Amino acid sequence: SPLFSCSFCSMPTTLLGQNLRPSSSSTSSTCDVLLMHSFSLSLSISLSPSPSLSQGTRDYNPKQMAIRERVFNTIIRCFKRHGAETIDTPVFELKETLTGKYGEDSKLIYDLKDQGGELLSLRYDLTVPFARYLAMNKITNIKRYHIAKVYRRDNPAMTRGRYREFYQCDFDIAGQYDPMIPDAECLKIVHEILSELELGDFCIKVNDRRILDGMFAVCGVPDDKFRTICSTVDKLDKMSWEVVKSEMVNEKGLSEEAADQIGQYVSMQGGMDLAERLLQDAKMSQSKQACAGLTDMKQLFSYLQLFQVTDKVVFDLSLARGLDYYTGVIYEAILTQTGPEGVSVGSVAGGGRYDGLVGMFDPKGRKVPCVGVSIGIERVFSIMEQKAEASAQKVRTTETQVMVASAQRNLLNERLRLTAELWNAGIKAEVMYKKNPKLLSQLQHCEDSGIPLVAILGEQELKDGVVKLRTVHSREEVDVSRAELAEEIKKRTSDV
Amino acid sequence: SPLFSCSFCSMPTTLLGQNLRPSSSSTSSTCDVLLMHSFSLSLSISLSPSPSLSQGTRDYNPKQMAIRERVFNTIIRCFKRHGAETIDTPVFELKETLTGKYGEDSKLIYDLKDQGGELLSLRYDLTVPFARYLAMNKITNIKRYHIAKVYRRDNPAMTRGRYREFYQCDFDIAGQYDPMIPDAECLKIVHEILSELELGDFCIKVNDRRILDGMFAVCGVPDDKFRTICSTVDKLDKMSWEVVKSEMVNEKGLSEEAADQIGQYVSMQGGMDLAERLLQDAKMSQSKQACAGLTDMKQLFSYLQLFQVTDKVVFDLSLARGLDYYTGVIYEAILTQTGPEGVSVGSVAGGGRYDGLVGMFDPKGRKVPCVGVSIGIERVFSIMEQKAEASAQKVRTTETQVMVASAQRNLLNERLRLTAELWNAGIKAEVMYKKNPKLLSQLQHCEDSGIPLVAILGEQELKDGVVKLRTVHSREEVDVSRAELAEEIKKRTSDV
Repeated sequence: SPLFSCSFCSMPTTLLGQNLRPSSSSTSSTCDVLLMHSFSLSLSISLSPSPSLSQGTRDYNPKQMAIRERVFNTIIRCFKRHGAETIDTPVFELKETLTGKYGEDSKLIYDLKDQGGELLSLRYDLTVPFARYLAMNKITNIKRYHIAKVYRRDNPAMTRGRYREFYQCDFDIAGQYDPMIPDAECLKIVHEILSELELGDFCIKVNDRRILDGMFAVCGVPDDKFRTICSTVDKLDKMSWEVVKSEMVNEKGLSEEAADQIGQYVSMQGGMDLAERLLQDAKMSQSKQACAGLTDMKQLFSYLQLFQVTDKVVFDLSLARGLDYYTGVIYEAILTQTGPEGVSVGSVAGGGRYDGLVGMFDPKGRKVPCVGVSIGIERVFSIMEQKAEASAQKVRTTETQVMVASAQRNLLNERLRLTAELWNAGIKAEVMYKKNPKLLSQLQHCEDSGIPLVAILGEQELKDGVVKLRTVHSREEVDVSRAELAEEIKKRTSDV
Repeated sequence: SPLFSCSFCSMPTTLLGQNLRPSSSSTSSTCDVLLMHSFSLSLSISLSPSPSLSQGTRDYNPKQMAIRERVFNTIIRCFKRHGAETIDTPVFELKETLTGKYGEDSKLIYDLKDQGGELLSLRYDLTVPFARYLAMNKITNIKRYHIAKVYRRDNPAMTRGRYREFYQCDFDIAGQYDPMIPDAECLKIVHEILSELELGDFCIKVNDRRILDGMFAVCGVPDDKFRTICSTVDKLDKMSWEVVKSEMVNEKGLSEEAADQIGQYVSMQGGMDLAERLLQDAKMSQSKQACAGLTDMKQLFSYLQLFQVTDKVVFDLSLARGLDYYTGVIYEAILTQTGPEGVSVGSVAGGGRYDGLVGMFDPKGRKVPCVGVSIGIERVFSIMEQKAEASAQKVRTTETQVMVASAQRNLLNERLRLTAELWNAGIKAEVMYKKNPKLLSQLQHCEDSGIPLVAILGEQELKDGVVKLRTVHSREEVDVSRAELAEEIKKRTSDV
């Protein structure tokens, strides 16, 4: 097609685009008539050969949206059951709001172009904006959920449900309360949501930053290396201990002896018993921090017993979580069943306590203790979509109750009039935007989109003041008086 | 506070921030110890004196969110009543996707910083991403709604409900259909939504790009000035004819005679009658385009009569709408009552037909005719918030049905156990995160947040296997057996 090539050298504009963009000022072009190239390139902008999406993002089609709506409803129902309010914050914040909150992950933050005015960044999570919101509005206690998209310049593994734009569903409890009670509620919420979504078996790993820091201290990690060693421990869910150890020793400069001691601890898993054992551990018990964390861990498990969720919760010393802002208990839920290709789906929820974050935004440094959890909803969507794909049941993307149709010609006005009557009566109704559609195509649309009823108008029905109401699946037809039509449709679709 | 001033010159860091940012390399600083400034500046980043939001954006607090949820529910119910599906698209698109679609408004597009990789922009509306979605997925007919945030680097007038980040609620019908049927449904939808939201009286102005272009042609506007003159006409809702005329003549170089002829037409308002009169108009009838538009306008009004919405619809030749992509009918809904300070709230919905947009994204230029409407939801929120503020009724921000409480000490475990039982039975329940809260403070929380019931536990109740169920507003208390508690709570809160 001539529209997609340079009119002079007939090089396709798709190739020209690739050639010109990186070196538009270059003079060693393969074509002499650079001007013509540019012209044909600008044509290709208004008549693009293949519209596409930015890397790592995706559209949701109506079927995916129907699934998404169902998942959100389950999650929101749970958050509301626990008495949560909801808030919303802007998608971009002042760049300085996000600075210094994410440790090594800061490089993944999207910045906006400086077009004059403030320097802005897209939000990286919902936790930092939440802390900024609390400090700005001087709120000292709130239980809130927030469901919104966040942005990370990550290498997307889209088949595994990882994107650069993705939803987070956060639930957080802010306020000065007695230890571990809100923390236990967060774990109860993860348990409820993952159970209700029926994603298969799961496990919630729990640890505490104070236990980790205490462990690093007693193993001989220098103070200034705690955070970076913690980031390395965080990789244990994806890499073997040998690889992690090598990073500690060779990249982070830790002594081999210290690394080996860490290796002993991070292989430990258990429940309340493990916390008790470590409180007696000769080395661990030397750290005041570790003891505080372990005592709280015992308390946490006692509340989890009351909530009847200990079947899924494991105290795991290898759990680290990379973010800088955690100060106490941390947790992460993983699905234990492997995916279709034997690949683990990995983490579907995570969170922890961050008592210092709000204070970072307060002029007087006033702290508001917080604990929260974030549901990794995109992975949940991926699993639900695969399930829907595998299932025989069709996903309906509309809720239409009735199609207003006719078999005869020249009844468009009558169809429109009846449709408006039904809309005004609160009935979900569709009508074909054609003057004289075939009855068959009207019925076919009902089959395709799962509409259960058809209201058929003809000259005779109009004379008699009735409508022929047809049930799509049984093909049964009855005359219903026009005055009673809306009620009859409501009755017939309420038990569907 | 010493944290907010330079440790050497004791200049407050807030001032330092202002001094340093624009000229960080300047040597003529008011303080000699620039290094110390920088150091204290970095402190001020992690301990910011006053966290703030980017200009033109806002947080939604729980009360605003409760109102927002109600408004969205009304609108979504209407879209679903009309058989619409929903989709979602990413918040940023490739920059080229947005290029050349918005005419003079393109300067308001937010770009992302080039951090390596693609050039990206935040979406400016939901219409262009929709067209890109249709072309990319080769969809030739769909009826969909899309509710999401869009971004414009506009001068925000936040008191009037205008922001740089704001929601759009779009409903569009794509497909090759008989003329004006989907167009009429869009207007019916605007009528339904504005009526249901009870925002006061409103008016829907209608016009057609072909009528405007025909009018420009017969008034002697040169072809290449149609779009720019159209943008000027678009300002008639905010400026007087004199100012608009002056812009046409002095800025856009139109002849005074042509401007005056336009002035005659744009003062005309009416209904089907006006369309008929203009079809007879000596000058207007010379334009084939205008005649096509006027014939369709007559057809549109005939359908609007069937839908019983002509009471609010006015054919108004001054309505222009700035966006480049409209090709046929255009409309805009305005609230006719003035706000508290006599200020008109202005447009609350707008849209039109854009038959060429999808083709701009298709390699073969295949067109998909589209018509749609966008609800200006932020203005609706503003009005609803003002109404809620003025009303005596309190806006509940949670849906909690019952508070699990106790009057005695040392019953935390029992309270947690009962709360978990209620959660598991689907009851929305809260419990205080304190070991020994006062009964009064537990009751006060119910009063404050509108929780209707309290389940009170004491030693005696535990022995008897009952719970004291208290109705907050009447203070009436009854003993309910623990086995029947969930059912009793459901019964009592279903009729609230």
